[in-house]
Amino acid sequence: MPKDLRLPFDPIARAGELWRARWGESSQSGAMVTATSIMRVQQLLLGEFDAIAGRHGLTFARYEALVLLAFSREGRLSMGRIGERLMVHPTSATHIVQRLAAQGFVDRVANPDDRRGALAVITDTGREAMEATTADLEAAQFGLGMLSSEDQGRLFSLLRDVRVAADDFVEDPGTGGR
Amino acid sequence: MPKDLRLPFDPIARAGELWRARWGESSQSGAMVTATSIMRVQQLLLGEFDAIAGRHGLTFARYEALVLLAFSREGRLSMGRIGERLMVHPTSATHIVQRLAAQGFVDRVANPDDRRGALAVITDTGREAMEATTADLEAAQFGLGMLSSEDQGRLFSLLRDVRVAADDFVEDPGTGGR
Repeated sequence: MPKDLRLPFDPIARAGELWRARWGESSQSGAMVTATSIMRVQQLLLGEFDAIAGRHGLTFARYEALVLLAFSREGRLSMGRIGERLMVHPTSATHIVQRLAAQGFVDRVANPDDRRGALAVITDTGREAMEATTADLEAAQFGLGMLSSEDQGRLFSLLRDVRVAADDFVEDPGTGGR
Repeated sequence: MPKDLRLPFDPIARAGELWRARWGESSQSGAMVTATSIMRVQQLLLGEFDAIAGRHGLTFARYEALVLLAFSREGRLSMGRIGERLMVHPTSATHIVQRLAAQGFVDRVANPDDRRGALAVITDTGREAMEATTADLEAAQFGLGMLSSEDQGRLFSLLRDVRVAADDFVEDPGTGGR
């Protein structure tokens, strides 16, 4: 953020103080400031990732779809599977693939298993844009280079507890994190 | 998430394994899975908060604007200040206030300090909707009840390191967190 737009105090910590002053010391001010921090950091990271992806004609969401396709066995996936794996609404997946197709980063082909559905297939230029964006995101350490590897692991683990409790996936008892 | 839509594995941990398999053990897979987790948890929390705010005719963004107004000294703020404190684009702040005004939750009055600008003033029904949403968010522990108070503090602190490094605000050396 440009220096002149920075607040001279932590606005989230300040909000926590106001929260306790209004709703009491036994209020959920700790949860409130933590949830607000998650949203703020998501906003900061997405802004940074979109800027990086933008250098290669992509948004971060479109980049994620290209990674998914590149990682798939045959470089092709149905819209439904893309939405499921990106954890976005099927309509969003369709929109993302439409934009990628217009850019020549994916081709759409008929789905042999679903007459009404289509498969997205990553193209060579799609792979190039994906690789170039990946290199830049790796160089930027996914916006988390200020944290040690250990602190990244602690952050992942705390957020995993939230995801497990939200029933986001069925926990495999054999693996305990990353 | 409905049980039938849950994946039988942690999709983010799986992505980390694929990342290391493709880009090597020295790649930034730890940062990648952590950044992805931040985005996923933000999505989960926002979905939950929007559902709660929706019971009172609000979205979470509009609720945040009402809290800001209720906390302000005279219950009124300029569009610019609302955008600044919510850390959203001025256009978004204007849109949020327009929706709140259409609902009767705020009034728009002339800004004595800026002939072209307007001030948003929270109304009594706006305060009621804000208080009712707050009570429900507090009861839901801001979606973070699965974490102990100590773990919430750890999470806040790790995310604060990210915000400080991103120059999000000027750190006050006199306060060290929440």
